[in-house]
Amino acid sequence: MDTIKYLLQEQDIPKYWYNIQSDLPEPAAPVLHPGTKQPVGPDDLAPLFPMELIMQEVSTEREIEIPEPVRDIYRQWRPTPMYRARRLEQMLDTPARIYYKYEGISPVGSHKPNTAVPQAFYNKQAGVKRLTTETGAGQWGSSLAMACSFFGIECEVYMVRVSYDQKPYRRGLMEAYGASVTASPSNKTNAGRSILAEHPDSTGSLGIAISEAVELAATSDDTKYALGSVLNHVLLHQSVIGLESMRQMEMADDGVDILIGCTGGGSNFAGIAFPFIGKKLRGEGGPRVIAVEPSACPSLTKGKFAYDFGDTAHLTPLTKMHTLGSTFVPPGFHAGGLRYHGMAPLVSHLHDIGEIDAISYNQLQTFRAGLQFAQAEGILPAPEANHAVAAAIEEAEKCREEGVSKSILFNLCGHGNFDMQAYIDYQAGKLVDYEYAEEEIAMALAGLPVV
Amino acid sequence: MDTIKYLLQEQDIPKYWYNIQSDLPEPAAPVLHPGTKQPVGPDDLAPLFPMELIMQEVSTEREIEIPEPVRDIYRQWRPTPMYRARRLEQMLDTPARIYYKYEGISPVGSHKPNTAVPQAFYNKQAGVKRLTTETGAGQWGSSLAMACSFFGIECEVYMVRVSYDQKPYRRGLMEAYGASVTASPSNKTNAGRSILAEHPDSTGSLGIAISEAVELAATSDDTKYALGSVLNHVLLHQSVIGLESMRQMEMADDGVDILIGCTGGGSNFAGIAFPFIGKKLRGEGGPRVIAVEPSACPSLTKGKFAYDFGDTAHLTPLTKMHTLGSTFVPPGFHAGGLRYHGMAPLVSHLHDIGEIDAISYNQLQTFRAGLQFAQAEGILPAPEANHAVAAAIEEAEKCREEGVSKSILFNLCGHGNFDMQAYIDYQAGKLVDYEYAEEEIAMALAGLPVV
Repeated sequence: MDTIKYLLQEQDIPKYWYNIQSDLPEPAAPVLHPGTKQPVGPDDLAPLFPMELIMQEVSTEREIEIPEPVRDIYRQWRPTPMYRARRLEQMLDTPARIYYKYEGISPVGSHKPNTAVPQAFYNKQAGVKRLTTETGAGQWGSSLAMACSFFGIECEVYMVRVSYDQKPYRRGLMEAYGASVTASPSNKTNAGRSILAEHPDSTGSLGIAISEAVELAATSDDTKYALGSVLNHVLLHQSVIGLESMRQMEMADDGVDILIGCTGGGSNFAGIAFPFIGKKLRGEGGPRVIAVEPSACPSLTKGKFAYDFGDTAHLTPLTKMHTLGSTFVPPGFHAGGLRYHGMAPLVSHLHDIGEIDAISYNQLQTFRAGLQFAQAEGILPAPEANHAVAAAIEEAEKCREEGVSKSILFNLCGHGNFDMQAYIDYQAGKLVDYEYAEEEIAMALAGLPVV
Repeated sequence: MDTIKYLLQEQDIPKYWYNIQSDLPEPAAPVLHPGTKQPVGPDDLAPLFPMELIMQEVSTEREIEIPEPVRDIYRQWRPTPMYRARRLEQMLDTPARIYYKYEGISPVGSHKPNTAVPQAFYNKQAGVKRLTTETGAGQWGSSLAMACSFFGIECEVYMVRVSYDQKPYRRGLMEAYGASVTASPSNKTNAGRSILAEHPDSTGSLGIAISEAVELAATSDDTKYALGSVLNHVLLHQSVIGLESMRQMEMADDGVDILIGCTGGGSNFAGIAFPFIGKKLRGEGGPRVIAVEPSACPSLTKGKFAYDFGDTAHLTPLTKMHTLGSTFVPPGFHAGGLRYHGMAPLVSHLHDIGEIDAISYNQLQTFRAGLQFAQAEGILPAPEANHAVAAAIEEAEKCREEGVSKSILFNLCGHGNFDMQAYIDYQAGKLVDYEYAEEEIAMALAGLPVV
């Protein structure tokens, strides 16, 4: 009764990314120019992204070919393993069959390199010399730093001040890959300087860091910007997770009844879920899909489906998404990767048309689930991934109570090696559940742009 | 010109461990009882280890079957990948072919579970309820903690006080697996109490922690002791590394000219090297084998090949090994896994009969090599593994200077995710090379037991 691994061969690394825009019953709402409020064209985005990525952003082709140099690098850790968690099933005494796809074996320990590598590749191809980006906890920043070091591109990361001070290890990793890391808000940009003028002690936010990185890219010729989640092309690149999982479920000779992913910006969730949802949209059937978010940053469960900015300084285009308002600052909880005020437009759209269920958990329940998982399966999950683990355990316990055997698949998007302080705090009883303030969200939502 | 992965199938996980004792031209010196100075028998070791492990310790069978439940757990991360480091070769502009076996994809990030799992298995089979052990940096302790959680055995870890205070993250990981972790020296044992009586502020050492763990096992009925390196059965379990590597070199259709591993107690080095050395001993040819150790703890290059104790309180049997003396306390350098005063008897013996070359590096050179490797290959190595990386790079540079293309294989025994402070200190210029004091070693060697 031990954990079973389902391992694909190198030739099984997908040759094409899957683009869910091809299968939508109605297209997602267009992205709007922040000034004119008219749909943006490719040229509007050209200062920020190379044309190949812009074309992917708006493509409605079902399959987009993965360039060979990108597959060459994917090969280093892909195909990633899928496991049947039989030791966990035993621990839970459940008739459920629990599967997890494990993205933590990438060199930086998460799914983020799946998009960092193609983004660096297309930028290199377009002659870009430098990429700017933002990072919160540092998963994305270290992935882009690694990808840039492979392609010989400079990497400049704006790291939320509070993480910069409290999480020196992720910063150290980015610097090990040769990236330069700046605490945000900084004096290097207008956006940063204006925040600092008003709040000299600002601890920063992802929205502010995005403003800084975007401003730098928009105002330098040889520099572009890279985003680690939310955008359509990022979700597209992550589809390798779900495409591989489908083949691995065939190896396991099993179907999926319940599919689970955690959501911050939406990219790891979309990565595993979109290929399955696409089949469903094409009438071929598919699982119930659950997005799990933290109660402390509940964009899908408590936010509004409306046009909003991606950043605090309102430099980005307007996208229609589930949002808590671009001025919403989530409280200090430990899943740093899930602290974004918005949700990927494609995830939001699919939630809106009823293809995705959303639930939220408080952090104590997720850490409890993560430790249970570690003791059964050996892998200590990232706090973000613990949200998916907690949902899988809850569904497996329901199976036990109801005496039914369902097949549950979740995405274990990363390991927790860089999050030990959170586990130590949890085990020392120092973490508390946070009840977000309804009025804070209401206030942030009241500030949504009028479109 | 990208990194190439050589990936075996699950059915290629070795079914037998390779025992180099079968191929030695002359047997290694016997282990002696500390009181009688006579060779120990199995019964002398029975208070500490289950009989299956004692039999493996003295076996001269070439192949020892790996129990199916152990292979079932190995399957979770084995076979581990072997890579050809073509991006590193390109960076070094070398005609050398550089291969590395990567053990960092195990759940705890190193090769240590290869022996932690069978040790927990055999103890469980023997009805043992609790295992005690010591740990320095924590790689071994977290591996045993994980293995014990799989088999439902209690795990009690004595962690060197200085690491306990300075490396809370590894401690957090052990506790996440349910282990109890005690700073050593502690008040729980006679060995600990007598040290504390004399040195209330003792920061501990691996030798002291071993004394405590051994004492507890020797004085409790349901408790045994587990060691993470040095002993023959530990090296035996690690042979899966080299056995897989041999098959992977066949996949690469290449031979090995130079084989490299870093050495602390000797287990990861033996793991990759012994199957190759065995072929050589059987007259089938093989590579030049290099053991790399830190200049700050140079047991092979500066120690004496003599009988010594494994611990500070002199509770262990006497083994003939390269040693710096059981009272030698290495200075504070960052490769915590390489701080042991002795060297595995089998590695020492093979060095003594000329089968192994030994070299030592100061730490600055090893960190420089580690960063070079990370920027080329994406994986940030553990500081221990950086010693092997540095030797591989030096040999590859020799190839460039001499215009010859050699094949170099080294063991990348773990990742550096839990060692970020060391990298940060290195990049901030805070690390220094340590010149060990000749007289310190001389003094410790003067105290060697008379046999």
